[in-house]
Amino acid sequence: MQLTRTQVARSGVRPNRASRRVLVAKAAKTANGPRIAVVGITGAVGQEFLTVLTERNFPYSSIKMLASARSAGKKQEFEGVTYTIEELTENSFNDVDIALFSAGGSISKTLGPVAAKAGAIVVDNSSAFRMTEGVPLVIPEVNPEAMSHIKIGKGGAIIANPNCSTIIALMAVTPLDRVAHVKRMCVSTYQAASGAGAAAMEELRQQTRDVLDGKPAQPKIFPQQYAFNLFSHNSSMDVALGYNEEEMKLVKETRKIWNNPKIRITATCVRVPVMRAHAESINLEFEKDISEAQALEALAAFPGVSIINDRQNNRFPTPLDATTKDNVFVGRVRRDISRDDNKGLDLFVCGDQIKKGAALNAVQIAELLLK
Amino acid sequence: MQLTRTQVARSGVRPNRASRRVLVAKAAKTANGPRIAVVGITGAVGQEFLTVLTERNFPYSSIKMLASARSAGKKQEFEGVTYTIEELTENSFNDVDIALFSAGGSISKTLGPVAAKAGAIVVDNSSAFRMTEGVPLVIPEVNPEAMSHIKIGKGGAIIANPNCSTIIALMAVTPLDRVAHVKRMCVSTYQAASGAGAAAMEELRQQTRDVLDGKPAQPKIFPQQYAFNLFSHNSSMDVALGYNEEEMKLVKETRKIWNNPKIRITATCVRVPVMRAHAESINLEFEKDISEAQALEALAAFPGVSIINDRQNNRFPTPLDATTKDNVFVGRVRRDISRDDNKGLDLFVCGDQIKKGAALNAVQIAELLLK
Repeated sequence: MQLTRTQVARSGVRPNRASRRVLVAKAAKTANGPRIAVVGITGAVGQEFLTVLTERNFPYSSIKMLASARSAGKKQEFEGVTYTIEELTENSFNDVDIALFSAGGSISKTLGPVAAKAGAIVVDNSSAFRMTEGVPLVIPEVNPEAMSHIKIGKGGAIIANPNCSTIIALMAVTPLDRVAHVKRMCVSTYQAASGAGAAAMEELRQQTRDVLDGKPAQPKIFPQQYAFNLFSHNSSMDVALGYNEEEMKLVKETRKIWNNPKIRITATCVRVPVMRAHAESINLEFEKDISEAQALEALAAFPGVSIINDRQNNRFPTPLDATTKDNVFVGRVRRDISRDDNKGLDLFVCGDQIKKGAALNAVQIAELLLK
Repeated sequence: MQLTRTQVARSGVRPNRASRRVLVAKAAKTANGPRIAVVGITGAVGQEFLTVLTERNFPYSSIKMLASARSAGKKQEFEGVTYTIEELTENSFNDVDIALFSAGGSISKTLGPVAAKAGAIVVDNSSAFRMTEGVPLVIPEVNPEAMSHIKIGKGGAIIANPNCSTIIALMAVTPLDRVAHVKRMCVSTYQAASGAGAAAMEELRQQTRDVLDGKPAQPKIFPQQYAFNLFSHNSSMDVALGYNEEEMKLVKETRKIWNNPKIRITATCVRVPVMRAHAESINLEFEKDISEAQALEALAAFPGVSIINDRQNNRFPTPLDATTKDNVFVGRVRRDISRDDNKGLDLFVCGDQIKKGAALNAVQIAELLLK
């Protein structure tokens, strides 16, 4: 994904004022901190890396802003310092402890191993290494133990950031799995434009404006009209199975993250005309009984989860609740009335696709390395 | 629902040119046809009744346009004749064979029985009588037998039109049920603005314009922002169960229509920023084995269903495909990979909420009365 900050601002997403204040107030540069590189600094996730590093007061002794030759030489402000964006090359990683990668799968595939060989710990936001054996796939709240053997200064490594839909689903489902063991998940997603990049967000805005003005929508990125419409996720389809890649990521990544090859998952992934937070309707089957009260208690105790579950006022999570927020929002928690037993629950989950779905999770992985 | 034709036109929905041509070309008035009344003629469904009557060349010897006192005296063009809208009263039904009601639940509750007592067969689009014992709840392609005892000229009666989400789901699921018997349905909906009326459609348009212009969205009908957002369906919630009315309609109406009190259903109903066609992601568990090929064959043979299921080109139904169309569109038909057996399928369904979800289904019920 390659969104510039300007493109994100133009997308109608509310500016994160809290984080701007923090940007001025804090400076986390310390002599003891790791040497960081941000790969893909001009992208939306690259920019969000900076926001999150500041918000979390992440310590660093140096930070290197890396991008393609096209952006090299441009300036990047960060925590009161003006940095010059450097061209990303094979030699970018000799003096780097942690490299946050978000420059697309092909760059990760080429330069991720180079960075690791040079001694850096790569936290990779692409799908390049997620299913590679030996590469930990980590949601810090869920499976930090998967990366416990990786330490700064003890050699390079690659750690993969899961796909946004997987992270958002598992933030809500993992606490319930720990109570009653999930046997089967049936997920329908409501996915935002941001997952398909800046141009997709701009396409949604432009088409919407055109349709409101009575003009025909002009699909470019997606073959379908996006304004006031929705469609099956645009990732490539396994023609034999009939599942698309986004759906299979949910299946395969969950198995790896939970270290549970038996977990049964079916998913239908749908792109809806929303800017940057995903929603997911999740039906769960458990091995053991689980009550609504137990579920809510487990969710409330889980870090990174907020509950909006006000039945009286019909108030539950929406994508806008989650937009620019760290936490994943969970609601509609209820016993599945299609079952006679107490082994089924339904829930509705929203999470920011750029934040917990990407940049925040990666920075949290980096934080684990500091411990 | 009370949308005027102008409001519908303003909503950005494409005008149905084909039906306009038909409007000029056909005249179904015959000496032998039934005497019809349209109750709620100024509403979106009332207007759609007229479009559908013409499109289907529905025969009638007379047609009466009924609305509240506010609209009485206004003119209504229909098939080349200018009618004067009459005030709806207890005496409106003495010379009526078929009364198509779509003026809200409270008017149906009050005047539906009055019309039936006067000898009219009421086809009621509200939820007032759907679950009333003795009132057939009919999707003509699914359970025409439920109303086979009702005949024109043999006394008045009430026949209920199911809820839009139920009709759209069952058009897709009934042919599969007939092949392999559905045991359990898990549904997540993506519902259009039109189901909440004209003001909701206008709210979506206005808020979207405001957000694009950088202004704050002003929620009126819905407590949540609707532009570039989505939220749990706004129908009233069963606080103990945690299911809303829209979801319970799917459960209860399906049981009645299929005459199968054992069918297990869970649903999550969600309002998305789309104008007038609903989408539904449906996971099905069957008693018997069913292959994708069997499912597609059954769907292709079922009247009123169109299949869009092109895995090679990632082309599946969207709300815009269904907008103003009679048929319900089905795709993403695939074996549920969360199961080891061949007793599970996933599918994605889209249908026009005003047409098959309301007016068309009611007119089809009226057509059954002509046989």
